[in-house]
Amino acid sequence: MTGEAYELIGRARREGRSSLTEFESKKLLSFYGVPVVEEVIVDSEGEAVARSVNIGFPVVLKGLGAKLTHKTERGLVRLNLKSEDEVRSAYGAIKKSSAEDWEGCLVQPFIKGKREFVAGLLQDAQFGAIVMFGLGGIFTEAIGDVTFRIAPLTEKHVQEMLDELAARKMLGTFRGEAAADRNQLMKVLMGLSRLGIEHPEIKEVDINPLIIMPNGCVKAVDALVVLDGSNVPCERVKPREDEMACEATEIRAALDEMMHAKSVAVIGATEARPGEFPGMYVCMRNFGYSGRLYPVNPNKEDIDGVKVYPDVASLPEHVDLIIISVPRTLVPKELKKCIASGNKNVHIFTSGFKETGEEEGVKLQQEIEHIAREGGLRVVGPNCMGFYVPASRMLTWITASKVSGPVALISQSGGHAQDFTHYTTSRYGIHFSKVISYGNALTLDSTDYLDYLDHDDETRIITMYLEGVKDGRRLFTLAEKVNRRKPIIMLKGGLTESGARAVSSHTGSMAGGLRVWNAFFRQSGVVSVDSVEQMADVTLAMHHLGTVPGRRTLVLGIGGGMGVAVADSCAKVSLDLPVLSPETNKKLRQFISPAGTMIRNPVDAYEAFFNLDLLGKVMHVLATSGEIDNFVIWLHLDWLVVAKGGGSYLEEVVRYLASEGRKHIQGKPLVVVWKQYEPNPEIIKWISIIEGVLLSASIPVYGDFSRAAVALSKLAGYSAFMTSHSQPR
Amino acid sequence: MTGEAYELIGRARREGRSSLTEFESKKLLSFYGVPVVEEVIVDSEGEAVARSVNIGFPVVLKGLGAKLTHKTERGLVRLNLKSEDEVRSAYGAIKKSSAEDWEGCLVQPFIKGKREFVAGLLQDAQFGAIVMFGLGGIFTEAIGDVTFRIAPLTEKHVQEMLDELAARKMLGTFRGEAAADRNQLMKVLMGLSRLGIEHPEIKEVDINPLIIMPNGCVKAVDALVVLDGSNVPCERVKPREDEMACEATEIRAALDEMMHAKSVAVIGATEARPGEFPGMYVCMRNFGYSGRLYPVNPNKEDIDGVKVYPDVASLPEHVDLIIISVPRTLVPKELKKCIASGNKNVHIFTSGFKETGEEEGVKLQQEIEHIAREGGLRVVGPNCMGFYVPASRMLTWITASKVSGPVALISQSGGHAQDFTHYTTSRYGIHFSKVISYGNALTLDSTDYLDYLDHDDETRIITMYLEGVKDGRRLFTLAEKVNRRKPIIMLKGGLTESGARAVSSHTGSMAGGLRVWNAFFRQSGVVSVDSVEQMADVTLAMHHLGTVPGRRTLVLGIGGGMGVAVADSCAKVSLDLPVLSPETNKKLRQFISPAGTMIRNPVDAYEAFFNLDLLGKVMHVLATSGEIDNFVIWLHLDWLVVAKGGGSYLEEVVRYLASEGRKHIQGKPLVVVWKQYEPNPEIIKWISIIEGVLLSASIPVYGDFSRAAVALSKLAGYSAFMTSHSQPR
Repeated sequence: MTGEAYELIGRARREGRSSLTEFESKKLLSFYGVPVVEEVIVDSEGEAVARSVNIGFPVVLKGLGAKLTHKTERGLVRLNLKSEDEVRSAYGAIKKSSAEDWEGCLVQPFIKGKREFVAGLLQDAQFGAIVMFGLGGIFTEAIGDVTFRIAPLTEKHVQEMLDELAARKMLGTFRGEAAADRNQLMKVLMGLSRLGIEHPEIKEVDINPLIIMPNGCVKAVDALVVLDGSNVPCERVKPREDEMACEATEIRAALDEMMHAKSVAVIGATEARPGEFPGMYVCMRNFGYSGRLYPVNPNKEDIDGVKVYPDVASLPEHVDLIIISVPRTLVPKELKKCIASGNKNVHIFTSGFKETGEEEGVKLQQEIEHIAREGGLRVVGPNCMGFYVPASRMLTWITASKVSGPVALISQSGGHAQDFTHYTTSRYGIHFSKVISYGNALTLDSTDYLDYLDHDDETRIITMYLEGVKDGRRLFTLAEKVNRRKPIIMLKGGLTESGARAVSSHTGSMAGGLRVWNAFFRQSGVVSVDSVEQMADVTLAMHHLGTVPGRRTLVLGIGGGMGVAVADSCAKVSLDLPVLSPETNKKLRQFISPAGTMIRNPVDAYEAFFNLDLLGKVMHVLATSGEIDNFVIWLHLDWLVVAKGGGSYLEEVVRYLASEGRKHIQGKPLVVVWKQYEPNPEIIKWISIIEGVLLSASIPVYGDFSRAAVALSKLAGYSAFMTSHSQPR
Repeated sequence: MTGEAYELIGRARREGRSSLTEFESKKLLSFYGVPVVEEVIVDSEGEAVARSVNIGFPVVLKGLGAKLTHKTERGLVRLNLKSEDEVRSAYGAIKKSSAEDWEGCLVQPFIKGKREFVAGLLQDAQFGAIVMFGLGGIFTEAIGDVTFRIAPLTEKHVQEMLDELAARKMLGTFRGEAAADRNQLMKVLMGLSRLGIEHPEIKEVDINPLIIMPNGCVKAVDALVVLDGSNVPCERVKPREDEMACEATEIRAALDEMMHAKSVAVIGATEARPGEFPGMYVCMRNFGYSGRLYPVNPNKEDIDGVKVYPDVASLPEHVDLIIISVPRTLVPKELKKCIASGNKNVHIFTSGFKETGEEEGVKLQQEIEHIAREGGLRVVGPNCMGFYVPASRMLTWITASKVSGPVALISQSGGHAQDFTHYTTSRYGIHFSKVISYGNALTLDSTDYLDYLDHDDETRIITMYLEGVKDGRRLFTLAEKVNRRKPIIMLKGGLTESGARAVSSHTGSMAGGLRVWNAFFRQSGVVSVDSVEQMADVTLAMHHLGTVPGRRTLVLGIGGGMGVAVADSCAKVSLDLPVLSPETNKKLRQFISPAGTMIRNPVDAYEAFFNLDLLGKVMHVLATSGEIDNFVIWLHLDWLVVAKGGGSYLEEVVRYLASEGRKHIQGKPLVVVWKQYEPNPEIIKWISIIEGVLLSASIPVYGDFSRAAVALSKLAGYSAFMTSHSQPR
């Protein structure tokens, strides 16, 4: 099979063609298991008629030729020919229209079917082979109901693709026609996936239409295979897996050396100056860096009494990490000095390279990349903040928690690295294992850091802010693997056009298309978030709840309008609010009186929040109903305080939820949302107290419904992915 | 024409049919200007052949009969008949299949066309006639690419409908076929609109397919008109417009009396009790109600030394407003007493009625509605908080601002009324004219309050929280009119299924469908928001900016990752971030150095934020470029403070923006967003100070990008609507 495939592609190449003919395209696809229409090439009227009779009327005639394009518009496709006469007349017309491009004529049976789909393959610059499936025929472009997956596909991916089209109903029994044969659809998409992986020289495949026949059979009726313009040999270059594994091991070791550096030198070290950000050296020193810290600067003797070295060559030892913070034009020289002195691990803080989009910066980046690769340097950056590692007391910005925790961050933005860690630690009390800000990714990219964190025992949850990635396929493979051991929560910047432009200005990255990234998230199970705050919200839920058993959510609180708001917020992110059964309703009505309350989920249980024993009973009834997976409790602080005449009641309520109340819900996940509007400092001051009580008890707490709903929904999505992928592939 | 329409409908009614035949349906539609396929009824084979020859082959034959359904499945539709023989054979087959339901046969020309659409009409329980248009043929159900508008339509509505389909490309030149004739599409949809308005007894019209022919002509090929089951006479009951206008005037007067009440009585008045919400009487008294306040309670002599009246009959005067706050079973009796004593204006605070969804409550609501209507009462509520009117010192909850302002709120939820007013006043410094919480809307509904506020000189912006509405058509007509004078910002609760259930539990309302409400918002120009906070955000932008000239937005601040986030946030809500021209870029590069900055919009102008003269120059260049409509400036407070060594620099920056800086942008709308993450109380305390400076200068300020982007986008949407509807209709 594969030999024949190479032959087809090779012939087109030799003839200088950038695509296969329709006949060749379908032939190639058939080698890969795609059910194609049976067809023959004829080169005379007599043969056309004879073959048509063989096939059985009605038939289709199509002009064939490497140079024939826009066949339909040029009248080179004649459908539904019902007699020998019609075949003769069509043959003549096609031959005439084809003129000097004539290479013969295809005869096919006329495949009937109301349902036309499209399937295809494309090579993405970052992710490689991508398989596409969607509504076809004349609607492909007009409707855009298509879905993508990164190859190689599994059968599960194909099932998901079929099920996520808007037009999925058309794949079932439809208007008197049988359901589409899912095995055949499986063959089409798995075949395309295999083709894309085995033949990266194929730039594009377009099967349109892929017809679902009235009996459910699937047939590729027309297809086009486009080759890339390169001279890549047909034989695929096998990845040198052993070499890659070896390099990965080395990089991990280098990163471990940097993140637990026993010695660090800062080139371009300066003292703090008023009205300016303190430099790298001062930040490391002030955070109490636990190793030996060497300032380097040819223009200084000492900084605050500490001896300054004129260059790296004069340092008393090889250091585990060099931080370069000098004007951009000096960076090449400093890198060369690092190489010469045998210092391999470098963080370049300096910016003004590719991200400027201007010639000088782009050239300078090319120059330093060349130097770094030649010299075997491991470079973090340029244009980045480098490392924050509490256990090593490493920090290159002004302030951060000195406590270590289970969450790691890989961030292409230094600003986001600071903001996210500040936010997550100060708002949610969550601490970090390792934080890496890596900017323009000169030699080390997100994939290297991800691989490192996968092996890092200190890290349990991995958060990422990514603008672009060089080797999307490696990221995908790694993320898919790592995410099953350690959940990955990713903020992908630049998924809009304006955002992509900003990305290219910021770290010189290529942001990549939304559809491919959507495929990335769906296939890898990596949790996608859309802001720094949302990344913190999901981290909080994941940190305390791990996974949740499902999407059936019970929301419980005080206030009707607020109940509507919570219900709408939950429904918008596909959390189910099951209607409670009559039995459960009846049990609840034993405790909750009808006036001013509602018990259909959301449950508005006014009395229960002023009588905690009652609240416990309500929670118990709900938890034991077997009707729900998760609890969301909303607390209207203003109302609770006013009715009970003081903020200490708030603490009483949350202490109850954190202890007794929680027993009543029997281990089910609980999320608390508070709302507070009255401009009353006496109430406001209690917010941090109740948040503290809940967080200490590992109960996620939010100040906004929709943020809580989004976090819980994303956690439920991750949990479902883990459940459905728990078998080894 | 209309006479013939009544005749067709009347005949079907007389014959006990709930729908017109296909022939009648198209006839009716043709009276309303819909271009339908020409067709004749035949009752013999010979006639079928003769008519086919007349029409010209190919033709279509369809079985005709009031009882014939599932025609395609039963083989009663024969397409593309090309010869007399084929007609004869089709005629015979159809007659046989029709059996005793045979009433003849339709002969039509066979209309060719790849493009099948659907158009229709339905009667919505709340809004009346709704016109629908979408992708048709076999795709209608599978794809769901349809759009709706509330009748009567204008030509502009039709243009919008055509332009908002996903499949709109198919209406242009498409695959070698001519663009659809938009005049004919106009006739179809305007005709349906007129039909729906003139014939409310028509429950549904379905034109499917509406074929676009290769030459662009539009033809209704099949159609079905369904009648409602009622015996409503065909002649339309004309709205008694004079009576309605008269009643509206009376209601406005009554509401004015209530909202500027000189005297108020509270039935069920109690003193404050610790551990409970204070009652209506205490709230009114404590807020310093400016009129004469009478407590009524047969079980008390006095409250805090003030004489209590045993019942309304014993009051020394007729009062402008009675507030009823007694157990629900006592409400009917109290209403009767109000009627007997000549007190007509009532606010019922009590809950436990229809919103419970339980028999007792539903019955009780029916009972009080009957009493109220018989007695001519004007009832606010039940199940609501009633009025907050600062100018009259009326308030039925615990605390609120005593300052009046230009914003009114109509809220079906009492909780939202409190939360929204607290939030908007305390966060954004915006005050209220009138706030009305009206719950179950026994006799007075949102429409009455909206009409009142339209005439209220004190009110400039109207905000609404709506769960349901009784007379959707009146709401629509009013909102459309009022919104052009005073912008309406509406939070519609219950647009999801779970939310709708919560709505019915909360105020016993019917929430209505998402698609019809979407049509409501598009047609009326009312600004739709999805949370209390978002309603406040948009109110803030509208209050200070009025309208904005367009969507071209320039975002300016410090930080690359943050720039990406702002760009993504703006793009998600369709704010344009135009790429700055090379000339503008060149001018900016005179002030902004390349390292660590970006100038392609978003503009990351690090240096400018530490040198305000420079910032002014940058703003001037941007404002005079002619390339942008609005400015969004983001301030990273942590960075500004750290670099300048103190929070007072923040104040310097915003004072500059509020005065000098603003001059440089020459009157263009400016929105400021601050971000702050570091847990540093020294920075946090400055937030309220800078917000105060900006708000005093009428500059909207937000603490979140996406909230700022949403508010600006919604304001731009409102502004564009106003511009395009500035001509009187």
